Amino acid sequence: MTKPVIRKKYLLAPGPVPVPESSRLIAAQSIIHHRTPQFESILKECTDGLKKTFNTTQDVFIMAASGSGAMEAAMANIMSRGEKMLAIVGGKFGERWAKMGEAFGLDVQVMTLEWGSAPDPDDVKKILDADKNIKAVFTQLFETSTTTLFDIKAIAAITRTRDVMLVVDAVSALLATTFEMDAWGVDVAVCGSQKAFMLPPGLAYISLSERAWDRVEKSDLPKFYFNLKAYKKSAAKNSTPYTPAVMLVQQLKETLRIIFERGVEANIQDCVHQMNAVHAAAKALGLKLLSKNPGPPATGILLPDSIDGAKIPKIMRDEYGVTVAGGQEHLKGKIIRIAHMGHVEFTDLVVAITTLEVVLRKLGYDKFELGAGVAALTKELYVV
Amino acid sequence: MTKPVIRKKYLLAPGPVPVPESSRLIAAQSIIHHRTPQFESILKECTDGLKKTFNTTQDVFIMAASGSGAMEAAMANIMSRGEKMLAIVGGKFGERWAKMGEAFGLDVQVMTLEWGSAPDPDDVKKILDADKNIKAVFTQLFETSTTTLFDIKAIAAITRTRDVMLVVDAVSALLATTFEMDAWGVDVAVCGSQKAFMLPPGLAYISLSERAWDRVEKSDLPKFYFNLKAYKKSAAKNSTPYTPAVMLVQQLKETLRIIFERGVEANIQDCVHQMNAVHAAAKALGLKLLSKNPGPPATGILLPDSIDGAKIPKIMRDEYGVTVAGGQEHLKGKIIRIAHMGHVEFTDLVVAITTLEVVLRKLGYDKFELGAGVAALTKELYVV
Repeated sequence: MTKPVIRKKYLLAPGPVPVPESSRLIAAQSIIHHRTPQFESILKECTDGLKKTFNTTQDVFIMAASGSGAMEAAMANIMSRGEKMLAIVGGKFGERWAKMGEAFGLDVQVMTLEWGSAPDPDDVKKILDADKNIKAVFTQLFETSTTTLFDIKAIAAITRTRDVMLVVDAVSALLATTFEMDAWGVDVAVCGSQKAFMLPPGLAYISLSERAWDRVEKSDLPKFYFNLKAYKKSAAKNSTPYTPAVMLVQQLKETLRIIFERGVEANIQDCVHQMNAVHAAAKALGLKLLSKNPGPPATGILLPDSIDGAKIPKIMRDEYGVTVAGGQEHLKGKIIRIAHMGHVEFTDLVVAITTLEVVLRKLGYDKFELGAGVAALTKELYVV
Repeated sequence: MTKPVIRKKYLLAPGPVPVPESSRLIAAQSIIHHRTPQFESILKECTDGLKKTFNTTQDVFIMAASGSGAMEAAMANIMSRGEKMLAIVGGKFGERWAKMGEAFGLDVQVMTLEWGSAPDPDDVKKILDADKNIKAVFTQLFETSTTTLFDIKAIAAITRTRDVMLVVDAVSALLATTFEMDAWGVDVAVCGSQKAFMLPPGLAYISLSERAWDRVEKSDLPKFYFNLKAYKKSAAKNSTPYTPAVMLVQQLKETLRIIFERGVEANIQDCVHQMNAVHAAAKALGLKLLSKNPGPPATGILLPDSIDGAKIPKIMRDEYGVTVAGGQEHLKGKIIRIAHMGHVEFTDLVVAITTLEVVLRKLGYDKFELGAGVAALTKELYVV
């Protein structure tokens, strides 16, 4: 039974996640002009902060775009016409790399994974050993569609010793799991604002290694809005080549303050903690995880075959005010995905798992004691 | 003399302009997920509203990007490799079309205008008559860098009768001056959020004529993030191909409400009214306009040779809290630009002209009676 008027809403989809109040209130302030010392100083503070989150000494650029825009910037700036690339495709975002490569006329080799699996670094090595024409590997740190963590450190150990770029979509993973761009030897990393950075969507971030910049000089793919040389030139003056998303950048300054106050490592451990608790809850409900290598940004839970799984996120949202994500493409109706990143809180998980239990029962799945999921969750979350 | 603490700030640069309070407060609300009936309904309301502002029955797409992103979308979707285009270059934004054409490997012919002049439609006709290979004309409705209005209706009358696309950057002009996409026969129009739509920057809008869509089918320039076929496919489901800038779209819904409450034509007349008043003020101060064909979005005023013009916007901003724009490139120090579009109010202009008078005096220009500018302004503004 729910109240006739549901007042509170809970957002636990793997992006956008809730935006902290102090950051939302900044969005309500009067706008400032972007070509002013005031904004230049804010932009510099943000890009300096982003460097710490990427663990890089290289420039990080902020673009007015969603994460896919930064993915395009990565490809269009380091590749040249007809060059060969490897796309690791283990879900919807891996597919995006492959489709983008096709759109840019590249020679796209696909390493296909079962959805829910992570690439075996040895298999990546074999592919690169067998074909010296592959100039770059495009992959994910966390494949959000399957909630699967990829071992980027191990893949980077292979690419960094040869003339092969490693391009990592870290959109949903940065600040939710460990990422060391420089130490691991990642060449290009891209991110977005609406995941662990707990901002509204509309900002994308990108950073390139020194050797990636060498390839930028030679790249002949057409680009303008995403031309990183223009961003680099402007960054030297704490500016952007095109009008930046002024208010979102100001909100970024505030969320970086929140993140650094807690500490990057503590933020990551919070996500790990929440992941473990949700894993325990799923187990207590007799449900399995989709992923063979799950990760801290979000968890995909396989739904019972006996019920119509597509109804679960819909009922949770429409009747109980709890938004989680369903599955995408062939996983539609097979899984739900619950986020742990950013401003998703312990209490949100308590509500989400409770609601999940209620809806599972309602749909006729009763292979658990009511309260078993939330008990297991609570035990892990609050270390009882 | 100013108070030691300046509390009020005035923003009169030609974008971003102030954001109305009711729209700013929406930005402070809790975020919602974009793949929900709730957001789909908001997106539909916004795109329906945008059609009215473009005066088109065609789809208008909303992108997470600044205006330059929509400019790129226009070019990348209707042109093919090596095709010839005409860029009308009368300022910084005309230059942007030409540079973008070069970046995309097009055969770029430039029609160069003196900065501050508008193109003579007869000259455009002569160029198109002389070279049947020109597939598209890229131009501005209002060249913001020189505050000059272009006669798009007359240029469209030439292009619409032949196999030549007309692509119009209406970023700073839409809702500040008349624009009839369908009736005039414009093929592609692009706009942005931070001008007369009085939103923060971060959204771009684009619409294409039916015959422009025919060219989209044939276009072979690489694109992914700005691929309009993907936007069209998603729009049919009231969705976007990539994560939209959720909060800005919700703010757009509110500013459209404000705009339609006043009426599109009344909004435009407000800008014309403010333009006339600022022209009168400039005259009363003994100052001339830069533009030979000024327009309602903003006014560029030539500064006296006798003073260091670059100091004016800086002193107005840093000492008096009034932000206007200076000139760009070779116009730096030669002009100031004052906006009339969107949420720039009569009272803002009273403050801006008063402050301009004070700063002009301070810098030694005294060829006017103190108060003469603001008197002329007031007379026009309030029709005394």
